[in-house]
Amino acid sequence: METFITFEGVEGSGKSTQIQLLGDYLAGEGIPVLLTKEPSGTPIGRKIGDILFHRGHFAMCPETELLLFLAARAQHVREVILPALQDGKTVLCDRYSDATFAYQAAGRRLDPAFVAAANDFCSSRVKPALTLLFDLPVETGLERADRRDARLTDPAAADRFEREELDFHNRVRQAYLKLSAAEPERFRLIDASRGVEEIADQVRGQVMDFINKQR
Amino acid sequence: METFITFEGVEGSGKSTQIQLLGDYLAGEGIPVLLTKEPSGTPIGRKIGDILFHRGHFAMCPETELLLFLAARAQHVREVILPALQDGKTVLCDRYSDATFAYQAAGRRLDPAFVAAANDFCSSRVKPALTLLFDLPVETGLERADRRDARLTDPAAADRFEREELDFHNRVRQAYLKLSAAEPERFRLIDASRGVEEIADQVRGQVMDFINKQR
Repeated sequence: METFITFEGVEGSGKSTQIQLLGDYLAGEGIPVLLTKEPSGTPIGRKIGDILFHRGHFAMCPETELLLFLAARAQHVREVILPALQDGKTVLCDRYSDATFAYQAAGRRLDPAFVAAANDFCSSRVKPALTLLFDLPVETGLERADRRDARLTDPAAADRFEREELDFHNRVRQAYLKLSAAEPERFRLIDASRGVEEIADQVRGQVMDFINKQR
Repeated sequence: METFITFEGVEGSGKSTQIQLLGDYLAGEGIPVLLTKEPSGTPIGRKIGDILFHRGHFAMCPETELLLFLAARAQHVREVILPALQDGKTVLCDRYSDATFAYQAAGRRLDPAFVAAANDFCSSRVKPALTLLFDLPVETGLERADRRDARLTDPAAADRFEREELDFHNRVRQAYLKLSAAEPERFRLIDASRGVEEIADQVRGQVMDFINKQR
């Protein structure tokens, strides 16, 4: 049976590692699974992502940033997510609508009513059945993101978001926690300050519990 | 005194030539003028334009197209148009909000109410004082665009829009005419089937008349 599961959280929360581990696990269980990612889940989305994360685009205004993420989502939903769900797959998506509310409405302080209307328009009201929120103090997450970037060839490779001030990231985290509190039936809070294996266990448990109840 | 003037019309209506001629004329009259263009009026907008017009992007969905144009406009208004107006300049802009209503609401059949709300959001309610609508039968316009493309190195260089069917372009033209009829105080209809010099005279006359009344 098709299921749409999203992975959300602040920078360095380890969700990209965890989505891979869960994907491998589900595939091993014989569950047809598709891993995807916003904004880069389509060829058009990858080009939009190049614009969004470009370190030289310090002049990008928040409205442009929002509309670019939504443009990538509109394409992603129609080209990738909906076809996979119609194909009976379990779709695991790294960031989706909640990220827009957390980063652009709360982080960038854009009008939440417009963000909601525009998100409905671009997502064609396709909503995740389950959302895993990887929560941890933003300081810890940013340190992890720094260590990750240090492994790249360019040591100053932090993107436009990682370079934001602590205050921005705290607004994002608090917004995620609020969204999670408002929809407890959809959200599962994952303590992302633990080790990779411990988190993977928690994720597998939550997701298999959800999938088994659906069957 | 600052004025915001937009140039609108179907493909091959000659507005890009006319905006240059008017710009030269106004500069010669000692009027400080800025010529700009959507979606490519900013560095970020040029990258968005590359995505929008790419001939390989046949899979782009209408919602993505709309949101990309709006993203480029959000940046353009804040980075170029508003600063120039605040600087007392006359801004001549090749395509703006009316193009979004004509191409994406009428042409692509997207919800006009959402287009209006999203346009208000991205344009920060900056509206042209005067809009010149270059009108001509779409068949004539497309033939002209074909001849223009034939001059390029790649003879099959029609973009995603020029390749649309006649019906699409007719919906765009009719939408432009409707917009013009609904706001006769803002719009001036230019008969774009005439020769370049004749049109240039008409444009100069309309614009100088408008500017002189403002003074």
